[in-house]
Amino acid sequence: MKAHKIHSGWKNTLHEIIYEADTPLGKLFDLVLIILIVLSVVLVMLESVKEIDVHYHKVLLTLEWVITIFFTLEYIARLISIKKPWKYVFSFYGIIDFVSTIPLYLSYILAGSQVLLAVRAFRLLRIFRILKLVKFMGEASQLKAALKASRAKIAVFIYVVLILSVIMGTIMYLIESDEAGFTSIPRSIYWTIVTLTTVGYGDIAPQTNLGQFLATVIMILGYGIIAVPTGIVTVEFSRHKKGQTAASVVHTNTQACPSCAAEGHRDDATNCYNCGDLL
Amino acid sequence: MKAHKIHSGWKNTLHEIIYEADTPLGKLFDLVLIILIVLSVVLVMLESVKEIDVHYHKVLLTLEWVITIFFTLEYIARLISIKKPWKYVFSFYGIIDFVSTIPLYLSYILAGSQVLLAVRAFRLLRIFRILKLVKFMGEASQLKAALKASRAKIAVFIYVVLILSVIMGTIMYLIESDEAGFTSIPRSIYWTIVTLTTVGYGDIAPQTNLGQFLATVIMILGYGIIAVPTGIVTVEFSRHKKGQTAASVVHTNTQACPSCAAEGHRDDATNCYNCGDLL
Amino acid sequence: MKAHKIHSGWKNTLHEIIYEADTPLGKLFDLVLIILIVLSVVLVMLESVKEIDVHYHKVLLTLEWVITIFFTLEYIARLISIKKPWKYVFSFYGIIDFVSTIPLYLSYILAGSQVLLAVRAFRLLRIFRILKLVKFMGEASQLKAALKASRAKIAVFIYVVLILSVIMGTIMYLIESDEAGFTSIPRSIYWTIVTLTTVGYGDIAPQTNLGQFLATVIMILGYGIIAVPTGIVTVEFSRHKKGQTAASVVHTNTQACPSCAAEGHRDDATNCYNCGDLL
Amino acid sequence: MKAHKIHSGWKNTLHEIIYEADTPLGKLFDLVLIILIVLSVVLVMLESVKEIDVHYHKVLLTLEWVITIFFTLEYIARLISIKKPWKYVFSFYGIIDFVSTIPLYLSYILAGSQVLLAVRAFRLLRIFRILKLVKFMGEASQLKAALKASRAKIAVFIYVVLILSVIMGTIMYLIESDEAGFTSIPRSIYWTIVTLTTVGYGDIAPQTNLGQFLATVIMILGYGIIAVPTGIVTVEFSRHKKGQTAASVVHTNTQACPSCAAEGHRDDATNCYNCGDLL
Repeated sequence: MKAHKIHSGWKNTLHEIIYEADTPLGKLFDLVLIILIVLSVVLVMLESVKEIDVHYHKVLLTLEWVITIFFTLEYIARLISIKKPWKYVFSFYGIIDFVSTIPLYLSYILAGSQVLLAVRAFRLLRIFRILKLVKFMGEASQLKAALKASRAKIAVFIYVVLILSVIMGTIMYLIESDEAGFTSIPRSIYWTIVTLTTVGYGDIAPQTNLGQFLATVIMILGYGIIAVPTGIVTVEFSRHKKGQTAASVVHTNTQACPSCAAEGHRDDATNCYNCGDLL
Repeated sequence: MKAHKIHSGWKNTLHEIIYEADTPLGKLFDLVLIILIVLSVVLVMLESVKEIDVHYHKVLLTLEWVITIFFTLEYIARLISIKKPWKYVFSFYGIIDFVSTIPLYLSYILAGSQVLLAVRAFRLLRIFRILKLVKFMGEASQLKAALKASRAKIAVFIYVVLILSVIMGTIMYLIESDEAGFTSIPRSIYWTIVTLTTVGYGDIAPQTNLGQFLATVIMILGYGIIAVPTGIVTVEFSRHKKGQTAASVVHTNTQACPSCAAEGHRDDATNCYNCGDLL
Repeated sequence: MKAHKIHSGWKNTLHEIIYEADTPLGKLFDLVLIILIVLSVVLVMLESVKEIDVHYHKVLLTLEWVITIFFTLEYIARLISIKKPWKYVFSFYGIIDFVSTIPLYLSYILAGSQVLLAVRAFRLLRIFRILKLVKFMGEASQLKAALKASRAKIAVFIYVVLILSVIMGTIMYLIESDEAGFTSIPRSIYWTIVTLTTVGYGDIAPQTNLGQFLATVIMILGYGIIAVPTGIVTVEFSRHKKGQTAASVVHTNTQACPSCAAEGHRDDATNCYNCGDLL
Repeated sequence: MKAHKIHSGWKNTLHEIIYEADTPLGKLFDLVLIILIVLSVVLVMLESVKEIDVHYHKVLLTLEWVITIFFTLEYIARLISIKKPWKYVFSFYGIIDFVSTIPLYLSYILAGSQVLLAVRAFRLLRIFRILKLVKFMGEASQLKAALKASRAKIAVFIYVVLILSVIMGTIMYLIESDEAGFTSIPRSIYWTIVTLTTVGYGDIAPQTNLGQFLATVIMILGYGIIAVPTGIVTVEFSRHKKGQTAASVVHTNTQACPSCAAEGHRDDATNCYNCGDLL
């Protein structure tokens, strides 16, 4: 860790604990956070199971309160320890943090906002931030780079798949009757995608001979064209693998800007690339 | 744009707007056309949903008339602004354009031609022509080249899959009874393809032990042989990627021949490769 | 065609027409044969559809007799024109030819041998021999070589998949009850393979929470391990592609040995590699 | 086989027969063991089929006793012929061997322990040890090495798939009602994984328009992201293939340490890499 710390005091320490992961306390904080996030998502799941909710409603609610209070304190600490709080509040993770915290409060203010409680499952998204801890990060960024490079080709592929689905869905709607489940063109398109992607629920299935023949064509098409995204991604992975072996070094720095919480600074950076403040 | 324009007048300008996409007006025209095509396909879908059609029939019909009139005017403009109209009329896109325009008129002439209205969904095919606009075009042509190169191998693959399906389907017909859904050999073949492509609707499913054992063999076969098209396409992509990096340059020219509307001319072309007229 | 013909007479000419494909008559014969084979398989299919068989039984039977007589004559011609008939009779294609010819005769001798009629679908296998005609043959042999090279790895893969299926199937049998369809271990294994290969009929589906959790694990496993055969085959294809570009030339010779009907001789061969006779 | 044997006597011979596979007797022993393991697993399966168990219960039980006694003797022989029996007892295969042997005994001691009888299917795991025999072993170790190298990337992939499933499952739970089968969030997540992996049972299927639209998104996602593990594994296979051609040689040595039964010694090893004893 070359970057020299200039700011000091408890706010700075708090910032290091909450936003970074290269001190023992920072790592501990992240670990506790991950456990609480996973626990809170498990709570959401258990509450949705009627048999469990009936018997353990109180236990689940108490645990939910404990987690909500922790998340509230954490949110306040994040606001205090950063220099430009508004930038954090309106950042992607700032919004996720806020939305993760409020559902329980809202359920008391708004009647019938039980739906909001399920929103808590989005807390899982927070884990992605804390992944700084995990050593797999380099691998993930490699995958991301390869996927990014093949983005345009995959977009073309999905575009062709969608047009094909609309046209095939319309044809199937003309051929098959309502009784087979093809009640409207959107539903026929839904069936076409179910078939093309080889999912095949069977809730809607062609009954006529012509319909079954066409379904066969769609299936073989779907079975074959899966080769296209696979080919694209494989070639891209292969290129990235070679590139990486030869030259590039992945810079994993867990520091976050004390002003705007931007991450991914170079190891030798002294200023934030986002707001220019000293790190 | 090196190619020099010799013809002039409003016909020429109209040709540039309608058939090409390198002037601001040409781009605007294509954008409007894409929006109208997508809108008209959404209309087709909405009309097929009974609940929506009952309430909004008039609105949908009015919008459909607006689009039909626009498409009619566009079709006439295409005919006027081109030097060899018959060549356009009988070209692939000429037929698509015509078929996209007439359904609403026909529904008044022919009774019970509601089926024709669904044909409007084919308008989506028109979008492929306008894709000149989109920057993904280079990617698409790369994919197309790779698929073209692996065409023969994929044909062999599909051929083997089909023969396998017929033979396996016949065996399953002999083993399984009518009650399980294997009522005829074509239907058994349909089931075999459903299984081999790992779609698996479940509308027909083997009931006997021997049938289930054979189904298992078909599944593992289908699960394994998907590797074949994937392998073919991946290797082909990999070759094209290398080739492209080394030498080839993709020539994207949005010009269309003023005589026959042929596209894909070289950047430095002065004559149409199709009819020989000056560009 | 370098190989010099020593034998002469009508037997030799017949041999060339029936077994080879490098004379116009030989090509015509193969074309007629392919059409008749496909037609006869279509007949088998149509007969199995009750509604069609009821109305057109006589037409179908007449056509079947025409084809059977042609196949009988062809079989006799094959026997006459070859020097070592017994070697042909007990070769793979000799047996297929015989089995393709007799079902109609047998259905008159043996009562209730309707099952034998369906055996006619195996006639499709005969097409593989006639593929000499098709130019895709080089591609097919490339695919075959690549698959042959990855045979051992694919065997290991299928072996692991089967062991996994047996163990997972047994566990699911212990967890799930009879009502969910898991009535015996073989049936549970059937379900496991249906799930692992991502076919998913839904005729048997887990009902308990633990069963559904385990099913989830099997699905993700199956979803992931499909990568293994794909990877193997892709790498093998890639190697063969490279090898082929550099050095190897595919020798496609449509000649067949006049004595034993062995095929695949080198272009410059003068003696059969199988029986040593002159070509 | 360079490694010199120092220990002698019948224990040593027994060790060679049971633990190794480079003597004729050792190979025979392994072959008998494989047949008995497969037979015993088939017995477990047949017993679970009610119709078969009713008629042949006595035959099956007798055969099971024969196998159990053989396995008991084998287990005792393994204990006697090894120098450090406790190390074997608590090794992976030691536990598997023990668990494979006792179920029949336990079913007499404990009432209602029929469940234990199904545990016998785990005997299949024993086959992996005996695979020393099979020549495919080099291939298997190659596959294993490639999968090991792509482990981290596949972990990232599964992690992303799981988070996606939880979030998508929660959204579907909010959209779809109980009647469609989305009775709780865990069940919705189960459905999401069924859909994402393209298994698609159809026991739970979305009914609302919004639900079907979202299902469509999940399907296309699942259809597309299968490319990721495939790409990873293919690239890894490709690297291992190249590495292997260039330098590495696979050392397949079937010797096992006489003290601790550790395997995989180098061909030129004189001491066990695990416990240091002479081989």
